[in-house]
This record gives sequence, C-alpha cells and structure tokens, in this order.
Amino acid sequence: MSLIVQKFGGSSVKDAAHIRNVAGIIADTYRQGNDVIVVLSAQGDTTDDLIAKAEEINPKASKREMDMLLSTGEQISVALCAMALEGMGLPCVSLNAGQVGIHSTSDHSDARIKKIDPERIQTELDQHRIVIVTGFQGLARTGDVTTLGRGGSDTSAVALAAAFHADLCQIYTDVDGVYTTDPRIVSSAQKLDEITYDEMLELASQGAGVLHNRSVELAKKFKVNMEVVSSLERKPGTKVKEVTKVEKTNIAGVAKDTSIARVALIGLQHNPGVAFQVFDLLGKHNINVDVILQSIGRDATKDITFTIHKKDLEDAEELLNANKEVLKFDHIEADEHIGKVSIVGIGLMSHCGMAAKMFEALYEAGINIQMINTSEIRVSVLLDEEDVNRAVKAIHDKFFDVI
Amino acid sequence: MSLIVQKFGGSSVKDAAHIRNVAGIIADTYRQGNDVIVVLSAQGDTTDDLIAKAEEINPKASKREMDMLLSTGEQISVALCAMALEGMGLPCVSLNAGQVGIHSTSDHSDARIKKIDPERIQTELDQHRIVIVTGFQGLARTGDVTTLGRGGSDTSAVALAAAFHADLCQIYTDVDGVYTTDPRIVSSAQKLDEITYDEMLELASQGAGVLHNRSVELAKKFKVNMEVVSSLERKPGTKVKEVTKVEKTNIAGVAKDTSIARVALIGLQHNPGVAFQVFDLLGKHNINVDVILQSIGRDATKDITFTIHKKDLEDAEELLNANKEVLKFDHIEADEHIGKVSIVGIGLMSHCGMAAKMFEALYEAGINIQMINTSEIRVSVLLDEEDVNRAVKAIHDKFFDVI
Repeated sequence: MSLIVQKFGGSSVKDAAHIRNVAGIIADTYRQGNDVIVVLSAQGDTTDDLIAKAEEINPKASKREMDMLLSTGEQISVALCAMALEGMGLPCVSLNAGQVGIHSTSDHSDARIKKIDPERIQTELDQHRIVIVTGFQGLARTGDVTTLGRGGSDTSAVALAAAFHADLCQIYTDVDGVYTTDPRIVSSAQKLDEITYDEMLELASQGAGVLHNRSVELAKKFKVNMEVVSSLERKPGTKVKEVTKVEKTNIAGVAKDTSIARVALIGLQHNPGVAFQVFDLLGKHNINVDVILQSIGRDATKDITFTIHKKDLEDAEELLNANKEVLKFDHIEADEHIGKVSIVGIGLMSHCGMAAKMFEALYEAGINIQMINTSEIRVSVLLDEEDVNRAVKAIHDKFFDVI
Repeated sequence: MSLIVQKFGGSSVKDAAHIRNVAGIIADTYRQGNDVIVVLSAQGDTTDDLIAKAEEINPKASKREMDMLLSTGEQISVALCAMALEGMGLPCVSLNAGQVGIHSTSDHSDARIKKIDPERIQTELDQHRIVIVTGFQGLARTGDVTTLGRGGSDTSAVALAAAFHADLCQIYTDVDGVYTTDPRIVSSAQKLDEITYDEMLELASQGAGVLHNRSVELAKKFKVNMEVVSSLERKPGTKVKEVTKVEKTNIAGVAKDTSIARVALIGLQHNPGVAFQVFDLLGKHNINVDVILQSIGRDATKDITFTIHKKDLEDAEELLNANKEVLKFDHIEADEHIGKVSIVGIGLMSHCGMAAKMFEALYEAGINIQMINTSEIRVSVLLDEEDVNRAVKAIHDKFFDVI
C-alpha cells in the first residue's frame, strides 16, 4: 500500500462533470489499496470572480482581506469533491488549511509554508478516509488565512507529500506531461517519460508553464517523486525525480519566453560598483533582472544590458531616469520585441558540443543571436521576438532528429 | 462608549451597493465612539447557489460537507464588508467562526453555540478595530465547521452580544421593526416601539418572520437588549427587552401562519396511552406537532386532532397508516386548507377580556373557529385558510381602534 498525493488544478474541477471525473481518478487510486491525499485549486473562474467582486468594492483592498476572500474558492472545491466521493460510497473528508494546520508565514498573498501538523490528516488516513485538502492556502501564526501566491496549489501538494513521506505526488493538468518543447509550435515535440528536478526547474523558469518553480524546488529539497499527468486521459505522464534512469545523451527540452524586455544603459562611467548600484536599485523596487551583459568599453564609458519582465519595463525606465545623476549614464535603450530561447538538460555540461549544436541550428536558420547566457544545465539565447518560434523549431529539430 | 453588535442579513449585503450601505451604517456607529462587532449572513442568493452546486453533484451529500461548503458564503460577505470599510479608511478585521472560536455542538446543519472565546475579538477591539464576524456558523470540537440552522445569524449576533456584554444587539432587516400585524394584509398595522422577549417569542413562533425564536430565547436568557431596525432607512426600530416601559393594556400584535395542515385520527380506541403512542411516533420521525385537540368520545371511541407543518403531511399520513394496527384508529382525515391566527401580549393574562374580544371580532366578521389553543401570553384560533387574512384584519381593527 502506498500513500499518493494527487493535485488537481482549477480547470480540472471547473464544473460538476469535471469534479465527477476527478472523483473517478481518486476512487480508482483508493480502490487499488492506496492511501490518498487530494489537493484542489478553486473551480475554474471562481478566483477571478471573487477578485472582480473585491475590485468593485475596493480596488485597494488589503492583502489580508483578499486572502480571507479568495480562500473560500478552494473550500468550495474540496467540499464538492468530497460530496462526489460520498456519492460513490467512498469514505472521505474535506479539510481547509486551518483544519489541517498548514502553518505558513504571514506574508498575505505570497506566504510560504513553514510546517504541516500531521495529527488531523493522519487520524483521517488511519480511518481509511480519502483526505481532500484546500490547495493554495495556509494558516498564519495569528490564526489568519494566507494564500501562497502563484503555483500555490502545486506547492501545497508537494509540501503535503513531503510531510507525509508520500510515495508519489501526482500533479494532474490538462496536458499529459512535460514535452521537449511546446507542441503548439513544434508538432514533433515529444513527451518526456522522465526529467530531473534541475531540468524541470530550468524549463519552468524558462517559460514552460506546466509546473511552478516553487513546487519543484520543494520537491527537490525533500526528494518528493512527482509526476505530471493528464486529468483527461488515463495514461502515463512525466516523472520528475532526483536522478533519471538512463544516462542522458540529449537535452531535456527547448523552452521559450517572450514576456521579457531588454534594457541597455549606454555610456556609463567606469567607476567601480556601478553595476551593484544599478541592480541594487532595481532589486529594492522588486524588479527582477534575468540575463545581464556588460560590455567592455572601448572608450571611457561602458554599457550594461539586461532583461526584465515586460510588465516592469515602464517602472524600470522611470526609476533609472530618476537616478540618472547618481548612476551617471548617457541614455537608456529599451526593446520590448525580444524573446529568449533555452535548451535545458543535465547532459549539457558533460557533452560540450550541445551549445555549439544550438548555435549551429540558429545559424542554419539564419537567426541572429543578440545575447547569450548559460547555467550549469541551460543555454539561453536572446533573439528578435519574431524569430522565436522559428528558432524553437530549428533547435528542436536539430536535437530530436526529425526524419 | 458602548459596545454595539450589528447583524445584517443576506438581502442587506446582496451586492456591492448594499455592502457599501451597510459599511456606511457601521462607520456611523463606529465614528460615534462605539466599539462595533458586525455579524453578516451570506450574500443574497449565495447559499442557494451553493446548494444548487451541491445537488448537481450529490443530492444526498453529508451534512458535514454541506456545512463546509455553505460556510464559505458568510466568509465572502465578511471579507467584502471589511474591504468596503478599509476603503473608508476605517480599521477593521474580518473573522470566521474558527478564527473567533465560536464553539458549537457537532450537529452539522443544526448546531448550537456552546461557548465563544473572547481573546481574538477582544484583542481586535482593544486596537479599536471594527470586528466583522461570519454569522450562521460554528466550530465543532473536532475542528470541523458547523452551521447553526435557520435563523443562525441572528443567533450568532445575540450570542456575541451576550459573550461581550454588549450594550445593544441590532438586527438590521429590510423592514423597519416589529409590527402589530403584517402591514401587507392590514394597512393600519402599527410599528411597535418596544416588545418583550416573551411577546416576540410568541409572535415569532406564530409566523411573524422578523426574528427567529432561537435568537430571542438566547437574548431573554442573557438579557441582551435587541433592536430590530431597517438597513434601508435611518430611523428607530423596535426594541426587544425583558420589561417594557409602560404597562401594557393591549396586545402586542396579531400573527398568522398558513403553513400548517390539520390531521385528525378518527375512531381511536379508549385504551390508555394512545395519545402518547401517536405523538411519540411522530416525534421520533422529526414531525413537530403544534395544536392538539382530543375529543371526549360519546361512544367507545375518541378522535385526536392536531396540526403539523404542511411539508410533513404526506410523511405523517404514511407513518400513521403504517401503524394503523398498533394505534387502532378507524381512519385519517387531513386538511391542508387551514390557517392559524394568534394574538400575543403580556397583557393577555391580566386582562381577561382579551380572548373574548378576539372571538367577538371573528363572530362579527362571520368567521368560523375550528380549534382554539392558548398559552400564557397567546390565544390562537384555527380557521379555514381563506378566512385568515380577513380574520387578521378584523382582530387587528378590534384591538387597535381604527377610526
């Protein structure tokens, strides 16, 4: 007998028919003799509807009250799912974060799970009940409800799997696994049977939307076996593990990200610490910087180029211009029409031809590279936005031998 | 400085405009220097919508899961109301029953409040925050959410007023107080400035829908000063107290109830204990009996006539017929087309002409009385359903001197 944690997102529980489908998956798992902990998000548009209600009353409502409001969405889901399982004659109980004791920090709207009390869930499991827990939410020390921010329900599921030493944490989505690249762009994209935590992390942060970083980081830390699997089709998904079975001789996948903008500070003085000043300033205003490139100046000045999220571009330009006297640069150049394409794989470091193979693919496709950035298991290139999809296809074809 | 508990029902918080109106009333009370505890029901149709969602999935869902589902309705209300007050710059906090510690029995869907923890609310009041609490719900010993059944939010408000020794517990509704009878039937109906707990109790159980019995019973027990007041107009409502200022020389009001049916068991044997057998049987099946009349038989048999709620009629007939052999009656006569009209007032016992005056009014109107039932402060008559409104008007005119 195994303990399995199963997480279903909002689209998987959006209406009665979908909830019945989810209940069917849970029932099968339970009837096979497993203990089951289920984690659910709010139904379909519920969160958006609640946000709309709040905005009508007060667009600047406190995060504390937003959390109080939004946390009702998951509670509705778990109660309805429990009712569906009751209708199938299965013993079950729904619990919210407060009832379980999912203790979190008090950072409303972006809390972090600190500790999960085992007692209530263990008592229910000992009585062979299926336990259905609200995802996305936590309990602050004050007794207040918190929410965990983006990817919160995935994180809830992994945290529960870690706390109860679950044998498997299944993340059910509307795709059937992690692909070598976006199947909507490259029709020959292949589903991966397995991927390492590190590869999944790099893919996730490079724009692959299947899993959120935080959940993968947590899974890696506590060595939780994850599986990304479809809630619509009953077939194997992609396993996310510490080490995969076979030695990788290829990359895990190709990811793209077109939500970025490039900013260049032109004509900076050569005074020491200027890079620190620039990025300290941006960091203090919660603007995350990704790729950074500093040119070696040919005269008395130098340029610093970096990428940020598109939504932060206006703020960043305003902020930098306001500090022009201190930072001593000549002017700013900004470009919103760029994209980033990355290859990810633990094989990258041990097979040094990988980066060259990527550049070759781009060269053959006649695509110009603006900037290059690498990590241990990733190579990213910055391109014109309009070249991105063509680049993904060219690189994918190069690595995955399309006949 | 006073402590005031203010309760608003579902229709008073049904949308953003209504919530803003409620926030305005709360703000005025707070700005006058009072501590304020607010109790809210779920918005308008929320509870019905949630019930519909549940029924689509499982019409026989457990009460435990129904409570888990329905309790989200009040949580949405309190969060939205807090946001409206935040928008007005007022310090406030919303709390659910679990966060407050409103301990109840574990009778899901019909729990009773046992105890309210003072700590959290007192801490918030000490910081001069308006405290907004979910009505209708409690916390079972297991940590599960319970709901309090019909009239639950009124009960929550009175229980909080009792626990915190509030100076006043205001029940805001869409009418502006308690009337001598239903103003929709009798245009000359008068609003009462004051009414005693006992009178309110009798009026409530005789069909006056303003307050639920349980809340009035609780208010009487803990001597909570209640006031029924309109959320739409700013004017005095009706105060509900232990003793009213002036000695009553008149009744408090005339109430009607057309939700009842009459059942007669004809030709019962004269064996002892037959009445006990009949009502024990009905009680065990949760069928409440109101007025009971037992005829004195002229031959070897007797009849027992009683009233029940219309919705229970089918069940009662089925149940009694199934036990015909044991109860030994000849046949059942049932009548759904009856109604009950009552006069209520603490003056009834000390002014013995009251009942006679009521009968006189009915006589003058040519209305036939089927059965009579009395309590210390109430006289009820059973009539043909079609005579009910005419009877209410005739009796009201008799007692309230219409010119």
